[in-house]
Amino acid sequence: MAIPTYSTGNPAMDFFFILFNGIAEVPLFSSPITGILILAGVFLASRKAGGMMVLSGLIGAGIAIMAGASYDLVTFGLFGYNSILTGMAFWSGPFVKANKATFFISVFGAAITAFTWMAFAHLMGDMFVLNGIANSWAIPGFTSSFIFTTWAMMYASKRFGHDIWPAPAPPPKEELIKESGNPNTSNSFKWTAKEFMIATLKGVSQVTFVENWKTGVFWVVGLTLAFELAPFISGVQDRPWWTNGYTSQWDEFSPLYLAGLMALLGSGIGAAMAILTKLPTAETRMGLHGFNQVLVMIALTSFVPLTPQSFMMAVFATVGCSFLMPGLQRFFGQWGLPALTGPFVFTAWVFLLATSGFLNIPAGIGWSRP
Amino acid sequence: MAIPTYSTGNPAMDFFFILFNGIAEVPLFSSPITGILILAGVFLASRKAGGMMVLSGLIGAGIAIMAGASYDLVTFGLFGYNSILTGMAFWSGPFVKANKATFFISVFGAAITAFTWMAFAHLMGDMFVLNGIANSWAIPGFTSSFIFTTWAMMYASKRFGHDIWPAPAPPPKEELIKESGNPNTSNSFKWTAKEFMIATLKGVSQVTFVENWKTGVFWVVGLTLAFELAPFISGVQDRPWWTNGYTSQWDEFSPLYLAGLMALLGSGIGAAMAILTKLPTAETRMGLHGFNQVLVMIALTSFVPLTPQSFMMAVFATVGCSFLMPGLQRFFGQWGLPALTGPFVFTAWVFLLATSGFLNIPAGIGWSRP
Amino acid sequence: MAIPTYSTGNPAMDFFFILFNGIAEVPLFSSPITGILILAGVFLASRKAGGMMVLSGLIGAGIAIMAGASYDLVTFGLFGYNSILTGMAFWSGPFVKANKATFFISVFGAAITAFTWMAFAHLMGDMFVLNGIANSWAIPGFTSSFIFTTWAMMYASKRFGHDIWPAPAPPPKEELIKESGNPNTSNSFKWTAKEFMIATLKGVSQVTFVENWKTGVFWVVGLTLAFELAPFISGVQDRPWWTNGYTSQWDEFSPLYLAGLMALLGSGIGAAMAILTKLPTAETRMGLHGFNQVLVMIALTSFVPLTPQSFMMAVFATVGCSFLMPGLQRFFGQWGLPALTGPFVFTAWVFLLATSGFLNIPAGIGWSRP
Repeated sequence: MAIPTYSTGNPAMDFFFILFNGIAEVPLFSSPITGILILAGVFLASRKAGGMMVLSGLIGAGIAIMAGASYDLVTFGLFGYNSILTGMAFWSGPFVKANKATFFISVFGAAITAFTWMAFAHLMGDMFVLNGIANSWAIPGFTSSFIFTTWAMMYASKRFGHDIWPAPAPPPKEELIKESGNPNTSNSFKWTAKEFMIATLKGVSQVTFVENWKTGVFWVVGLTLAFELAPFISGVQDRPWWTNGYTSQWDEFSPLYLAGLMALLGSGIGAAMAILTKLPTAETRMGLHGFNQVLVMIALTSFVPLTPQSFMMAVFATVGCSFLMPGLQRFFGQWGLPALTGPFVFTAWVFLLATSGFLNIPAGIGWSRP
Repeated sequence: MAIPTYSTGNPAMDFFFILFNGIAEVPLFSSPITGILILAGVFLASRKAGGMMVLSGLIGAGIAIMAGASYDLVTFGLFGYNSILTGMAFWSGPFVKANKATFFISVFGAAITAFTWMAFAHLMGDMFVLNGIANSWAIPGFTSSFIFTTWAMMYASKRFGHDIWPAPAPPPKEELIKESGNPNTSNSFKWTAKEFMIATLKGVSQVTFVENWKTGVFWVVGLTLAFELAPFISGVQDRPWWTNGYTSQWDEFSPLYLAGLMALLGSGIGAAMAILTKLPTAETRMGLHGFNQVLVMIALTSFVPLTPQSFMMAVFATVGCSFLMPGLQRFFGQWGLPALTGPFVFTAWVFLLATSGFLNIPAGIGWSRP
Repeated sequence: MAIPTYSTGNPAMDFFFILFNGIAEVPLFSSPITGILILAGVFLASRKAGGMMVLSGLIGAGIAIMAGASYDLVTFGLFGYNSILTGMAFWSGPFVKANKATFFISVFGAAITAFTWMAFAHLMGDMFVLNGIANSWAIPGFTSSFIFTTWAMMYASKRFGHDIWPAPAPPPKEELIKESGNPNTSNSFKWTAKEFMIATLKGVSQVTFVENWKTGVFWVVGLTLAFELAPFISGVQDRPWWTNGYTSQWDEFSPLYLAGLMALLGSGIGAAMAILTKLPTAETRMGLHGFNQVLVMIALTSFVPLTPQSFMMAVFATVGCSFLMPGLQRFFGQWGLPALTGPFVFTAWVFLLATSGFLNIPAGIGWSRP
């Protein structure tokens, strides 16, 4: 058994796993340690953000239990992360105001995200069954339910007659390169190793809409200490506490505790690509060109086994994601919406779908190829 | 056998069923009585609308027969409703002018909708086959073929050098709430029980682009009297005339003739949500925030068995649809297009897809779960 | 065996097939003769375009081999055509400037298109397996990977601080028909048979972003001479050189060398529909309303057997595509993007999906129906 069960039958322990695995699944694997450290990092940056993280994760899980979801999926944290992201985006994120109206929408959003998660998990997970149910060619839904739910709610709420969105800023003055349709983004800022590192760490913390390099440090440490802490369940499971959540889809005993490194690498590639393509420096410094890449690097090395080949593909995909991000930024930006983790989701889907036919990329653990 | 066959071999009877089942399928089930009452209600509001309803429904069915569709699907009415909606949207609806050019486009649209219907029925219906063809996890296509065909044709026809669209209105003056990006929609209108009921009935009639509360009454009565009138076919089918079309996917003998009530409930929830979120009062009074919700309530109680649990889910989905509607209204509105029944289709898809993993929601009648 | 193998084991021969089949697959079938003539026609119009055609096709194939794709797919040309289109669109097409920045993006785009191709081939090809892997209801991915990759890269690169896009043109002055929202496109140009033929031939050449009627002649001749030149492989394949690439999915010995005629017909229908719907004459004369229709006619007569019924459906679909084209033109045009072959892809998908349920349309060769 590669994946542990977290359903202990003890309400307090189950609650612990539901909460912290639900948070740890934001970066796509289950480890209560990772969840605790991420929550601590978020609380450090904003108590409001931390509170909403806990609340919306529990709402998602609660709705799922009421609707009759598999309890193992709930304790594994799978009904947490998307509800958390929806809840946070609509309350503690930098997008809408935090008031009574947005609080209700946020809570409703966390609840309905349990349904959209189940829908996308089914859609992507069960679409390909090439030879009976034993052979899964599944693709994970990732954070698709969060992004579609949140885009719809954000766009809808712009029509509401309640005070939800901040007053529109005056249209930015964009100076074009001479005889070109492209913006002139040159400025006097000089990138140093320190500034680059700060941007990279902020890129990690931006996964939950937080711009704070210290939160980023908590994330990286939490991702590294990806111990599964699988509960002992007599007759079912006797597994050491230190198995590796990041790798456990393909080898729970792998010593490669590299999720933190992958996050840094992804965020760093994103920042470097943003500098290379001359995107606005202010965005790069805020970490906006890092968070999608963080998730791409983690997803493409934990949903397929990490080998030199899959690592190379993950880096290539991360570079590709650095094209998709400004594309979707501009696309959603025209409607006053953020790109959220859309660039990550679409990039990861394309590369996992492609893996089905690219036999130099290892697979065969339930995703992409049987 | 839960679903009757309407293929009698008698051309006149088949024609009758093709026509009126095709109309009755607009609210998603087959009953000639329902079809007759809806058509009567539409004629009451506009002869042009009624005429196009008949014509486009027959065109869709005719094209399907020519292309070699299963005759049982045609007599059941399944090639009617989407063609009807496409034809009406492009001729008798409030969107484009009714003239020779739009008449031809409307007829062509009704014809091509037979192909898009078959495509979506296949796409959604056959995507999930988890364990051989005996076990269906199908999702209905609903009115997806109507909406995608109509959006494409409407948007295309804005480029045509023919007189199709009315002259553009001056841009509406939108007053914002102070220090907010949201519109100030407050006005002096006072909602009364009577006004609310009129808005609710108009919401029902708006399913076919008609704003007329009397048409809404015909709809509600027609939906309630959902008798299947299944023909007697010797050796094949001997079924009383009064079986319930609304419930026949899960129990044709159910005494729950509740489709009319569900429609009222859906439209009422939509109107209430529109008032709560302070959408423009004029839209709510016209029934624009009802018609998608009508279809959500009917779909989520007739494609899965109606139980307290599924009823609660349907209500929850209807509230969710009341977010998606203003979102898609704004989304398509920027291009001068209506949202059509897009909010209904996407909401119903998400909740039926989710039902596959939520075991407290009954299913197992060919949709969502085997 | 209907489809030949082109994997000879001889590097020089394999290279030959990879290159020219890759080009021939732009119009959706494999024939080195077709590939050579198309390349010649493109070189005639622009050396830059021809060079990028060769380079990007080889990049796509090289990446696919490195990633571990089936070698037979590579020599058949399937990793060529989408990479070619992406590369050409971003370098030698009429959209962006041709400079160092766009060259790098173009090469990167050709590389990543190998992944998006594999992803879409899997998505569309393996979505429907109604009764075990022996029965394929596959749908081809067509040029979907090219269009999605290129739209994303084009839109992203508008944000880059490099000189990529030409300076924005002043907004066109659009005169409306009196009391209408539609443009007044009437002008003094008189269509003659000669002008119509030039527009039709340009419509063919526009498949690779070239506006040159002589290139169109090379295309039509190349499409007609669709000899497969299948290599002799001892013990595997002994097939005459003159088998028909255009028809070989359903009958490699068919004497119907009609791909060139279908291309002309498609482009002609497109031009006629554009004149009928009064789209801007300048666009019709440039061939912009032909290239999608070329591909629809070829696709719907080579992926299903060509019979009077399927021919009628193909013509009907081509008329439908002539609605989708101005729709998508306007849709993507608002963001400064071209519609590319989007109208073709979506039209062909709808009609091949619909074919699954329309039994008067022949199928059963691996696409649409088993």
